[in-house]
Amino acid sequence: MKILVANLGSTSFKYRLLDMGGERQIARGGIERIGSPESRCTVEIGDARQERVLRVPDHAEAVRQCLAQLTDPEHGCLKAASEVSAIGFKAVHGGRISGVQRVTPDVLAAMEEMSAVAPAHNPPYIAAMRQLSEQLPQMPLVAAFETHFHQTIAPANQHFAVPHEWAEQHHVRRFGFHGASHRYIATRAAELLGDGDLRVISLHLGGSSSLCAIRGGRSAATSMTFSAQSGLPQNNRVGDFDPFAIPVVMQQTGMSLTEVLDTLANRSGLLGLSGLSGDVRDLTEAAEQGHERARLALDVYVADIRRYLGAYLVELGGAEALVFTGGIGENQPGIRAAVCRSLEELGIAIDSERNENARGEAKIHAPESRVQIWTLPTNEELIVARLAKQLLEG
Amino acid sequence: MKILVANLGSTSFKYRLLDMGGERQIARGGIERIGSPESRCTVEIGDARQERVLRVPDHAEAVRQCLAQLTDPEHGCLKAASEVSAIGFKAVHGGRISGVQRVTPDVLAAMEEMSAVAPAHNPPYIAAMRQLSEQLPQMPLVAAFETHFHQTIAPANQHFAVPHEWAEQHHVRRFGFHGASHRYIATRAAELLGDGDLRVISLHLGGSSSLCAIRGGRSAATSMTFSAQSGLPQNNRVGDFDPFAIPVVMQQTGMSLTEVLDTLANRSGLLGLSGLSGDVRDLTEAAEQGHERARLALDVYVADIRRYLGAYLVELGGAEALVFTGGIGENQPGIRAAVCRSLEELGIAIDSERNENARGEAKIHAPESRVQIWTLPTNEELIVARLAKQLLEG
Repeated sequence: MKILVANLGSTSFKYRLLDMGGERQIARGGIERIGSPESRCTVEIGDARQERVLRVPDHAEAVRQCLAQLTDPEHGCLKAASEVSAIGFKAVHGGRISGVQRVTPDVLAAMEEMSAVAPAHNPPYIAAMRQLSEQLPQMPLVAAFETHFHQTIAPANQHFAVPHEWAEQHHVRRFGFHGASHRYIATRAAELLGDGDLRVISLHLGGSSSLCAIRGGRSAATSMTFSAQSGLPQNNRVGDFDPFAIPVVMQQTGMSLTEVLDTLANRSGLLGLSGLSGDVRDLTEAAEQGHERARLALDVYVADIRRYLGAYLVELGGAEALVFTGGIGENQPGIRAAVCRSLEELGIAIDSERNENARGEAKIHAPESRVQIWTLPTNEELIVARLAKQLLEG
Repeated sequence: MKILVANLGSTSFKYRLLDMGGERQIARGGIERIGSPESRCTVEIGDARQERVLRVPDHAEAVRQCLAQLTDPEHGCLKAASEVSAIGFKAVHGGRISGVQRVTPDVLAAMEEMSAVAPAHNPPYIAAMRQLSEQLPQMPLVAAFETHFHQTIAPANQHFAVPHEWAEQHHVRRFGFHGASHRYIATRAAELLGDGDLRVISLHLGGSSSLCAIRGGRSAATSMTFSAQSGLPQNNRVGDFDPFAIPVVMQQTGMSLTEVLDTLANRSGLLGLSGLSGDVRDLTEAAEQGHERARLALDVYVADIRRYLGAYLVELGGAEALVFTGGIGENQPGIRAAVCRSLEELGIAIDSERNENARGEAKIHAPESRVQIWTLPTNEELIVARLAKQLLEG
């Protein structure tokens, strides 16, 4: 069975094609600048890379072009597009609907209800999935919700202290996101460290960041709650925030509620704090050159990561491993060192040299550390493909 | 020097009179049902208790009556009201103004600006302090802000990830509250355990609850942030909440922003979750009889306490002591046991028998516990009196 896993932006379509016999990646590719007069359409199959530039008006045409490249008699890897059993999507927020779902009008409606809660994520996926289901009706579409992995979280960690009817009737609760990444880390850590009742704290740090407490392969708690703006500060999204500050900001600035929320969702996070950039690489460089707000933004980011790290050490009563993953988690030894500083009494000791030199899957703890510390590249596409395969196989 | 420390409600005035030479309580008393035809006016001096019932229309008259009882030639303890050097208040939220302050029109104005943020706390204090400063101009009034102890918190733990001008111009940041109680615990723990760089986690659990990480007697982090509705769930206030749920609730219920915030400030917390009561004693009894939502409310409360407990273990890199205080912290062994369960790997082990039998100042950790665990009755009035004395002495 072959599954194409899609990663959608409002004007981009990236994918990986996986052969689920052996879970091998056969191809990867994508199209950028969809809707512009010239879109670049690339595919990599093994070591060979093909590129075409052509007009691609929308996501349905983008998928058609990608399938054309994959079935090209000379350079392709498929005999027919029908070899692709499904397109899998990492869908963010379905509110009342979670799990792994065939894309139906009701699934799209549930996602639409949450568009205001996930303004950066839901709208481009809804638009593209709707178009594909209309124009490529023969292709099964599967949405693996980012909230799915967190459905094992116990009620005590799921509920806000709000009137119970808000949870029951309006689904106001801690959903959690980054489920595909945290599930991959849970699975891979069990392969590396043995499963059973393994306790892992997964630190997915990137443009979007969250921590997850994992016990025996299941999510026990996670830092994002109702929306993808909660938890840790993100590149341009706020993270945890006290709603009682909203009327004060409204009164003092004249902004509406919508404008305040828009600011919290688009001009806050590392970008808002620093006034400079939402990218940790930029901030690190600026901080080294004495930019105080860049330093502050990094310090707040690390302090908030440590807050959840501690919360999950207590949640799990200790841990066998911390795992850093995501763009920042895998590639920023300075952030990893700052997160782990002065935790020797709690059994956590990073090895400076291993940390600096870590590439790919690597152990970075000191010999005396009771808790193992790893970097593991995440593989969300593999998880989406596995979940899609399970769904198709019933 | 004698300081009268006041605890105000909208229709009540309670006080303790402290002699600061020896920090001895000379008297305590108060008036209830201010504004009703018959107010009960009590005073306890040593073992003697006096009570009068009379008409007390407002807080200024309440203070006059209390001073009259204290200077009563037969039963009183003062020769003249002028022996009282000041009335000290535990003021909650001054926003742009914190610290320990003589009550001035500007201090009252700053508190008024924060009335919507601290709706249960600021308005009765403002009304009473304004009246006293007008009608008893000879009596120095001192406000010790609950945010004061937290001014030592480092910027990384003070800032939300919002645009920097929100912090700089609109004072949107993590203030922290319960400063008098956490300061008392910091001071008392240092007396009992030795000071220096002592690391203490203070768990003030009561009708209103917060945790504080204390290093070397100074606050390093605390769970309440901008408003007294944030952090842990309170009796009827929400605790941490994702503001992006607000528009969803507004849309689905037809409530206004003000109504949603009012619900979060008055009908949420343990009361909202349980649908029954905001009192842990009621909830414990109901949970034992099988009331599921009462059980859930207690579980959420404990889970949230544990979340901050872990955060502060990491903040401090370990701790010498956990201290339980406040009405719940001092008197609910079941909550203390639940907070400390399964933390042996992190060096925290409670002793069941000591925990059950603890009264007043008591050690409740097991012999093998690396971290000491204590119950300590708090004494916020002593802290307010000390701070008022320091201010008066310049």
